[in-house]
Order: sequence, then C-alpha cells, then structure tokens
Amino acid sequence: MKNKKINNALISVSDKSGLEKLLKNLSKYKINIISSGGTFKKIKKLGYKCQEISKYTKFNEMLDGRVKTLHPKIHAGILNDRSNKKHRREMLKKNFKNIDLVIVNFYPFLQVTKNKNQRRIIENIDIGGPTMVRAAAKNFKNVSIITNTGDYDELIRELRRHNGDTSLKFRENLARKAFGQTSYYDSIISNWFNKKLNIKFPEIRTIYGKKISQLRYGENPHQQGSLYLIDENLGLKKIKGKALSFNNYNDIFTGLEILGSFKKPGTVIIKHANPSGASINGSPIRTFEESFDCDPVSAFGGVVVCNFKITKKIARKMSSIFFEVILFKGIEKEALKVFETKKNLILIDISKFKNQIGQQIKYFNNSFLVQDRNSKVIDNKKIKFVTKLKPNKKELKYAEFALNICKYVKSNSIVITKGFSTIGIGAGQPSRLDSCKIATQKASKFQIKKLKNSIAASDAFFPFTDGVKKLIKSGVKLIIQPGGSIRDKESIEVANKAKIKMIFTNIRHFNH
Amino acid sequence: MKNKKINNALISVSDKSGLEKLLKNLSKYKINIISSGGTFKKIKKLGYKCQEISKYTKFNEMLDGRVKTLHPKIHAGILNDRSNKKHRREMLKKNFKNIDLVIVNFYPFLQVTKNKNQRRIIENIDIGGPTMVRAAAKNFKNVSIITNTGDYDELIRELRRHNGDTSLKFRENLARKAFGQTSYYDSIISNWFNKKLNIKFPEIRTIYGKKISQLRYGENPHQQGSLYLIDENLGLKKIKGKALSFNNYNDIFTGLEILGSFKKPGTVIIKHANPSGASINGSPIRTFEESFDCDPVSAFGGVVVCNFKITKKIARKMSSIFFEVILFKGIEKEALKVFETKKNLILIDISKFKNQIGQQIKYFNNSFLVQDRNSKVIDNKKIKFVTKLKPNKKELKYAEFALNICKYVKSNSIVITKGFSTIGIGAGQPSRLDSCKIATQKASKFQIKKLKNSIAASDAFFPFTDGVKKLIKSGVKLIIQPGGSIRDKESIEVANKAKIKMIFTNIRHFNH
Repeated sequence: MKNKKINNALISVSDKSGLEKLLKNLSKYKINIISSGGTFKKIKKLGYKCQEISKYTKFNEMLDGRVKTLHPKIHAGILNDRSNKKHRREMLKKNFKNIDLVIVNFYPFLQVTKNKNQRRIIENIDIGGPTMVRAAAKNFKNVSIITNTGDYDELIRELRRHNGDTSLKFRENLARKAFGQTSYYDSIISNWFNKKLNIKFPEIRTIYGKKISQLRYGENPHQQGSLYLIDENLGLKKIKGKALSFNNYNDIFTGLEILGSFKKPGTVIIKHANPSGASINGSPIRTFEESFDCDPVSAFGGVVVCNFKITKKIARKMSSIFFEVILFKGIEKEALKVFETKKNLILIDISKFKNQIGQQIKYFNNSFLVQDRNSKVIDNKKIKFVTKLKPNKKELKYAEFALNICKYVKSNSIVITKGFSTIGIGAGQPSRLDSCKIATQKASKFQIKKLKNSIAASDAFFPFTDGVKKLIKSGVKLIIQPGGSIRDKESIEVANKAKIKMIFTNIRHFNH
Repeated sequence: MKNKKINNALISVSDKSGLEKLLKNLSKYKINIISSGGTFKKIKKLGYKCQEISKYTKFNEMLDGRVKTLHPKIHAGILNDRSNKKHRREMLKKNFKNIDLVIVNFYPFLQVTKNKNQRRIIENIDIGGPTMVRAAAKNFKNVSIITNTGDYDELIRELRRHNGDTSLKFRENLARKAFGQTSYYDSIISNWFNKKLNIKFPEIRTIYGKKISQLRYGENPHQQGSLYLIDENLGLKKIKGKALSFNNYNDIFTGLEILGSFKKPGTVIIKHANPSGASINGSPIRTFEESFDCDPVSAFGGVVVCNFKITKKIARKMSSIFFEVILFKGIEKEALKVFETKKNLILIDISKFKNQIGQQIKYFNNSFLVQDRNSKVIDNKKIKFVTKLKPNKKELKYAEFALNICKYVKSNSIVITKGFSTIGIGAGQPSRLDSCKIATQKASKFQIKKLKNSIAASDAFFPFTDGVKKLIKSGVKLIIQPGGSIRDKESIEVANKAKIKMIFTNIRHFNH
C-alpha cells in the first residue's frame, strides 16, 4: 500500500512541551486536530484550529471526563484497516473519518504513586489514553502513534520526507514504543496494587524499568549493556570521574547492600562483587584503614563504599591508594581538592541513596527466581551457646558483625574478624574447608598479629570438623555458625577441647 | 457505602471453561448477562438468557468486531462512581445502566506469538478486552472484575456470602489481579515488538513471568521464594524425587548454561553455583567420571548436569555417590531402576530444555543491569600466539575448552585442564594469584598425576607474573588468557624462560 496523507490527528497529552513546534508543522500539511480538555485549551491558546472531541463524536463527555474518547467514532477511526474494502464501506456508511495520527502521553504515574492519597492514585489510572494508544499501535499499518514528546522531531522529519505522511517502518517502531509505554504503565499499577495488598509472590508478575544509562559495554567488552531504573531516582550523585561501567555498578550495588546493614560509621571495599574488607571499628578513618588492611592486595583497584563524610584527612589517606570508585555521604571541599589530580578516580555521593526493603530477583534463561531479601543476621530466640565457655555480650556483638559480613560474601563463606573489622575473608568455594583455608591464609598473610583470639563466622554449618580445627589452629577463639550438621556434636567437642566458644544461630546465610 | 446487589454482568471470555457453573449461580441472583460473539453463542447454547452487546448499546459491531465494546454505554456503565450524585444523574439522563460485574479473559497471547504469521499475531492484540478490564479494575470500589476462570468459585462464594453482591476487599484483590493480567499481556506484546525489531536495549522495558512454583523457601529457610516462568515451558521434566529448592534451581540453571556450550557428550557438576568439575573427554561415562574426579570432595551433594542418555552402567556409577540432582537427556528403564532406592535423589530429564539466546539481567535494589549473554569463547581474528613455542591445533582445542569452562566460573577464575577435562578450578577470589593457588592446590590434591603438561585458562589478564609463575611451577605447559596487562611482556618472558606456550585471546570473560 502506498503512503497517503495524514488527514486527522488526535492529540491528548499530559506533557505539553514541544506542542507549538509540532502544531506548526502539522498545520503545514493541513492536518485537522481533534482534542479535548487541557490539550484543547492549550492548542487554541497557541492559535491553532482544533475540534473538541465531544463535538467530533457528538457525544458530550460524562462522569467528569471518565468517558470521553471511549466512543466508536474515535476507535473505528483509529482501528479500521484502510486496505479492507468492507471496513471502508462501513466507515463510509457511518460517515466516520480516519484518524491517522494519535499523539497521547500519560500522566507520570510513578510520581503519583508516591502520593499517600489512594483515591487520587486510583483516579489517575488512565483508561481512555492507553486504549487509544493500544488501538493506534495495533493498527500501525495505517496509524502513527506518538507516546513521547521526544519523537516529535522525527515525526516532523517523516512528514517532510513523505509529504505529509509517514513510512511503515517508522510507524512500526512507534507501535513498539507505544506497547513499551502501556506495559510500563500497567506494570507500575500492578506492582502498586501488589505492594498495597502485601502480595509478595503474585501469580503473574511484571518488572518495569527505564533505561538511564547505555553503558560502554557489559561485564566484558564484547557484551553490550545498559542500566535500567525501577524507581524514580537511583540515588547516586557522581561528583567526579568518567562514566560508570557495568562492573562498577555491580560492585557498587553489592557494597551499598552491605553498607545498608551498618548502624555505625563503616567502610566496605568491594572487588569482583565480594567484600575484600569491611569495618565499623570506631572512627570513620579507622574503619577505612581497617577494611583496607584486611587484604591490601585485593583492595587495589577496588570500590570503596562508606557511610560518612569525607574529610581532608580521610581523603589524603584514601588518595594514597589506587581505587576505581569511592562512595560516601558528603565530601568536604578541601577533601575534594585532594582527589583533583586522580584522573581515573570516580567519586559518588550516596547521601540520597535509599535501600529498598524489596526482593531479590535472579534472572535465568527463560525464568526468574524471586525471594525475600535476607534481612536477618541472628535471632535471639534461636541462638544457642553450645560450648562450655559462653561468649559475653561484647563478644556476641563482635560475632554478629562477623556473621553479618559473612552473609554478603559468596557461599561457601568464612569471615574472620577482630573487633568490628574483618581480618580474613574466604569466599566462593564449593568446599567449606577451602573457604576456611583461604580465610586463615589471608589473615595469616596480612593480619597475623590479630589472628590470636579472633572470631570466625560461617554462612552454613560445618559438615566435618576439619574446618573448625583449621580455624582454631590459626587462633580463632569464637566460632559463630548456624549448626545443623549431623556432626555438630563432634564440632562442639573439638571446640570444647580447644577451650574456644561456639554459637549456633539456627539461621543459614547462603548467598550465591 | 453498603453492599448492593449486582444487576448486570458483562461476559466476554476466550477460555470458556467453568462457564456453566458460573451462569447457574449468576441466574440464582437474577443477574442480567450481556455478551457477544462466541461467548454469547455459548451462553445461549447452555440455555441461559443473554443480551447481545450490540443490542444493548444499539450500535452494531463493525470492522470485523474491532469496534464492539468501545462504546460509552458500556464504559459509563462500568466507570461511573455510584456514590457520586452527578454521575448518577448523568447515567439516569442517558438511561445507561450500571455494569457491576465484568468477566473477561484474554486469548493466550504468548502462544500466538509462537506463530510465524505476523499478521495473525497483530490481529490477536485485543483492544476492547483490556479496556473493559482496566476500566472495571479502576472502579473496583463498585465493580467486580474477573480475569481468571480460577476465580469463579470464589466469586460464587462471595455472591452467597453477600446475597448477590461482593465485598470491597474481594473486589480490590480482583483489581490487583486484573492489572497483573493487563501488564503481563502488554509486556508480552512489547517484548515481541522489541525482539522483532531487534531492539536489545529499549528505553522502556518490562519483564513478565507466571509463577510456576511457590518454593518451600528461598536461598535460606527464613526467606520465602518463588519461581516464575517467562516462556511457555521450563523444559525440565522431573522423573523422580521431591520438589526442587531455590538453590537447586540456581545450580541447575548454572549447569544448563554451561552444558549449552558443549557440542559433544559432556558432564558438569555444580556446587554453590560454580562448576566443581566439567568434562567432554570422550564417552559419556568418562565425562562423568572425569568431571567428578576433578574435585570429588566438592562434588559431594552436588548437581550433575549431562547432555546424554543415562544407561544402566552410568546409573550404577552415579548412584555410588551422593548427589542432590542429576539431569540428563533421557534415561533407560533399567537405569531408572538403579536409582530407585535413592530416596532423596532428584532426577530430571532435560530433553526438551532449550537454551535461549536472550540476555542476562542482574536485579538490584531499585534498578537492573541488562547485558548480552557472553556467547563467545575465542575469536580467531583476535587470537595471538605470544610465546616462542606455539600450540598445535589439538592444544588450541584443549585450551578453548579450558577457557570455555573458565568463562562460567565466578571471577577471578583460573581453570586447569587435561585433555577435555578440568583438573583444578580456582573460583571467586578478589586476587588472581589466590585463584591460581586454589586451582593448583586442588589439582595437586586430586589430580597430581595429570598436572604435568596441563593447560590453564584465566578469565582476565595477569596483572603480575606471580600467578603465571605459580601455574608453571605446578606443571602447566600452556596458558590461555586475554592479555592486556601493562606487564604482559614480563609474563611472556616468564613463559618463554620456562619453555611453555601462551595464548592471548583479547577477549575477557568476567562473570560475577
């Protein structure tokens, strides 16, 4: 079918920017405009001709505008197949005109849902708009559907190119975008309802996002990648440095999750999505130093995440080491100057970052797993002190810190700590004994003095006593673990024999 | 507002199951039925009274049914606020009746998209149905919206409870489900368009899934979890055993991805989402044996994934070891008998599993990262033989296998192989040297005889020569790695000095 001229356009927009330029161009091609409400008023005000929808349909809008465009004359005008003789006959018989261009954008619903007034939120669920958009998109063979003011310029160019019409290719792409908008819109509504009614695992689930960054590449240079935002605001304010990479984001998000569990000033350093060190041991600068000292080799080139303000003193300390990204809550002017010469360093203020309670989603081939976040560390009702020697309150606090970090290290994980600082982290091994070996080897290498009387946390039970023995041998005096192995008794015996303390939490912390 | 009786119901369903029982109950409360098309015919055939929509609206349906319910009388009937005097007046004036119950389900669109006929797919995009569903859901204060035949029984119970009406709580939950359906429906359409037009990173993106399994718990017992299916079929057929856990699925999906890269009979054993061993070295049974031998300690309790048929002989071999899950392409009857006594073993046939080309999505706090799958291993155009000694064709094939497995091991990863079998895997370390140590330690422990003249693959370049030296010292004679470090020259020198071979692929394989 050859291109023909667009005769009638229906415009109903919440975002009225760019309208003047668009109207100027539509008028060049003598395109009749149909509109209503605020858009109608705006068009008239801008000095362009426009017919009101109610006059066009000869049906007065009713129910405070709830029923306005839901009319056969509008929808037949959009939906009829211009190449179908029967359709053409029916249109003629009813004296209905074709609507060849539909320009509709929705009220920003995500913002509305931030509103506490439920009635207002529901009132803002648009019925007429999405119906027109969907109808026009379905009939992209004949109709152009614009759902984004950002597409006005391309529409204008198309009209010029095709002397008042558009190409099929252009229309199909617009239809694609239109269904992106309607699915996004309804996904927000759907998720809002699920949240409101506290349905965590609905039978049907959609996840929505807006692309906020086309990344230079994905996890590796031969993979393309992008970042999508679910909420309205990522909460990361870049102060300095180049664009963040896929792996930067991956590390940052891992770090922010750990940081979200800190109730005191603290630092965590991330490398390859695992913490290489973490500390809440005293002053801000000390937490940085101790998280770095845990594994100064691995921390090299890592991502530093901290929940305090960067002073000049801290900046000087940090700037003596090579890091890729440093994240913080505020930075002093003088401190920023210290970093000035660091060309490749990225600085990010996370003051506005908010940890959502949300869920974790793991996406695979043709499915995804959804689960609650692991928001517990210990449960006082479930905890058991299983050895003859019992930890005191302070030691219990230290042990809880160790287990909290262990929770975020990829399984199997063993974390050795001193005070509120990690001194050895064993991550990502299929065998628990291997994780014990790595943690003790690391601690022996960099923190040998602190190993004596240290604390070790394990994300899951010890299937054999070998790991327990390994830890004890290196100097660990308190082990916190879920328990639950058929060989628990043996582990307790080993602990008693060595006169160390052991805590069973009855809470496992796998993290893959 | 007190509950009132439902007077008029609009029914338009693709899935006509359960209709008879429903109609019987609606008639008890003298609810008038409005319908059209196939649903109308079915209702008449079942012997119930029913008014055709076109007679109700006094507007003949047109454009082959494209415009039928998109009529003010229908939508005002659904959308009017019964507690609003103005709305009531307008309804009276027009002589429009309230529609208090809307029963609509959509054509299973996901199935339609499997159709190669694009025209038919687009013809199946429902406009009228979703509009009624959305309108009714918006006005849940007054209207009950049923989008699933599974909700008929609860509706019947509600009508009984409330003497021909429904409760607000019930209606709100129905509205929640309704928006689940519309967002799911449009998300499928949106993704279909994106795929068709080859848009990998659209500005707006929705992901859809149907819950196919409420899991016993998530990654840990204190977390709830569910599995959602994006496609129509997961492709996993359980032959034997209890329900799969969250961690089972996580391991299975990891294993299936690796298996998808095998072009020969092969086995991979997964533990904690990392391979503990993998092999495509010869006969099926040999690949199992060699992947197990790589790390018999870690393989204990693991997930075995293989791409061949299980014979009695293989079954006997496998059943002598404790595994949680075994996946395969077919199993002989005699083989199945061998596993009969293994109470806790889960057997799954993956003959119908299909690896999608798709993308990887990493979901975080309030955002998600999307990237292409890492579908390359080496690129012959980019590969460089950097040492004096060059690998022959066979060695290159072996090296490619090593790198392929390395690609799937969590970074930093080092994989040592002999032939087409792994003999040492170093996973998930923040420092590359540590991964080298783990891989060589493992190989020394379980495969010491094979270490001599072995091959090592590294997912990323060696920042220092320490890792290279470590590998050479343990017996590695060929190293395959991306290259790209400022110390590449030094690494090559070390390799030349030791008279080993080194390949630079110029392709990095991070995997976190």
